[in-house]
Amino acid sequence: MRNIKLVLEYDGTNYAGWQRQKNALAIQQVLEGALYELTGEKVTVIGAGRTDSGVHARGQVANFFTASRIPAERFSFALNSVLPSDIRVLESQEAPHDFHARYWAKAKHYSYSICVRPHAPAIARNYYYHVSDVLDVDAMKAATRYIIGTHDFRAFQSAGSSVKNTVRTVYEAYWMWEPPCYLYFHIKGNGFLYNMVRILVGTFIEVGRHKMLESDIRQILESGDREKAGPTAPAHGLCLERVYY
Amino acid sequence: MRNIKLVLEYDGTNYAGWQRQKNALAIQQVLEGALYELTGEKVTVIGAGRTDSGVHARGQVANFFTASRIPAERFSFALNSVLPSDIRVLESQEAPHDFHARYWAKAKHYSYSICVRPHAPAIARNYYYHVSDVLDVDAMKAATRYIIGTHDFRAFQSAGSSVKNTVRTVYEAYWMWEPPCYLYFHIKGNGFLYNMVRILVGTFIEVGRHKMLESDIRQILESGDREKAGPTAPAHGLCLERVYY
Repeated sequence: MRNIKLVLEYDGTNYAGWQRQKNALAIQQVLEGALYELTGEKVTVIGAGRTDSGVHARGQVANFFTASRIPAERFSFALNSVLPSDIRVLESQEAPHDFHARYWAKAKHYSYSICVRPHAPAIARNYYYHVSDVLDVDAMKAATRYIIGTHDFRAFQSAGSSVKNTVRTVYEAYWMWEPPCYLYFHIKGNGFLYNMVRILVGTFIEVGRHKMLESDIRQILESGDREKAGPTAPAHGLCLERVYY
Repeated sequence: MRNIKLVLEYDGTNYAGWQRQKNALAIQQVLEGALYELTGEKVTVIGAGRTDSGVHARGQVANFFTASRIPAERFSFALNSVLPSDIRVLESQEAPHDFHARYWAKAKHYSYSICVRPHAPAIARNYYYHVSDVLDVDAMKAATRYIIGTHDFRAFQSAGSSVKNTVRTVYEAYWMWEPPCYLYFHIKGNGFLYNMVRILVGTFIEVGRHKMLESDIRQILESGDREKAGPTAPAHGLCLERVYY
């Protein structure tokens, strides 16, 4: 059995997220179906990040085991010939037998895209969160400094999560403004709690609206209290850009 | 009767282009329907550019006459409350009585977006033309110099067009490469023949593939022969960015 590693791009708009589930179509399920169509094998595809419903990916990584004779590099073309157009396999290659897309991931890079203007976007509307308030981007940039480094991010995790260790390291986090109205957040870290990027973004937007202070971020981190952080920004602005091994 | 000027953004994917027609839904028709819903008036909306089916706009300009009491600046919000999410009115304001969105246009800026890599894009796939060949972007940039200025662009017009004067002035035209795989063409001119931007792009792509030489552009212009130019690039990469008055 060979272990095949895939790099995937997908538009999450029409899916219930990465992970296979009952009564809703997940990306994992569509991939497993495509592999069954190609190989006749019922495989489990392991994804590096369990993206939520509506979340996109430009560089999700996955792996699966197969006895098929399809050359590793041809899997991308073979899969793309049977996958729907909102899921594309960008790369496929043979990986070490013990490679595990999730456990081996050392870091991940996410982006979050915002359209800041009075009216919602028509073009690319499934990829931008629309904010009609004016945002103080300088304040948001200043607030972002507080999350860089190793912190307990418990306050930036959705209630109900059962993860025990809530300490994570953020290597990089920054905002980019692209005129006339596009605002991008990029964050790279060794791991992310459930909804962590979306709650961070929702909190920074509150700072941008002057409903929170830059320095509140430090206090929210110290409090460990989800109630003190801002709202969870919507899923469709989020994109898993890259997974590092 | 007031003359109202609109600036519009739309995703052209699901429309048969700007201009109202039988048996297919055009953006003009949807706007006129929305205005009827708001005002009870059957108006004609004049667009600056008659974008084709699948072509997008970030800055289409249109105008219409109304006797309604809705303040000019509120039309954008009122229209957006009844329009589908793939058409947004970004601005609305009162214009001089003789303002005509098409006849008054002094220049237009179009963009064309390409995704250059082996596999098609999943994200934003309705906004990028996918080219799987490697492109020599430097050659494309060099070829583009030949079209700047005033030329007879007859060779870059779809057959069957009945325009008499085929001389147009291109003020600016350039390519931008955005890693890892996105290529953008921008062109600003005083007017464009039917399919001119798409045929120019299709021709420059042939240069990028080394199927044509940079200097062929000059000969194609001089020949006035559509057969000598490259293929018409697909509609969905094209976007009307802005109209100048």
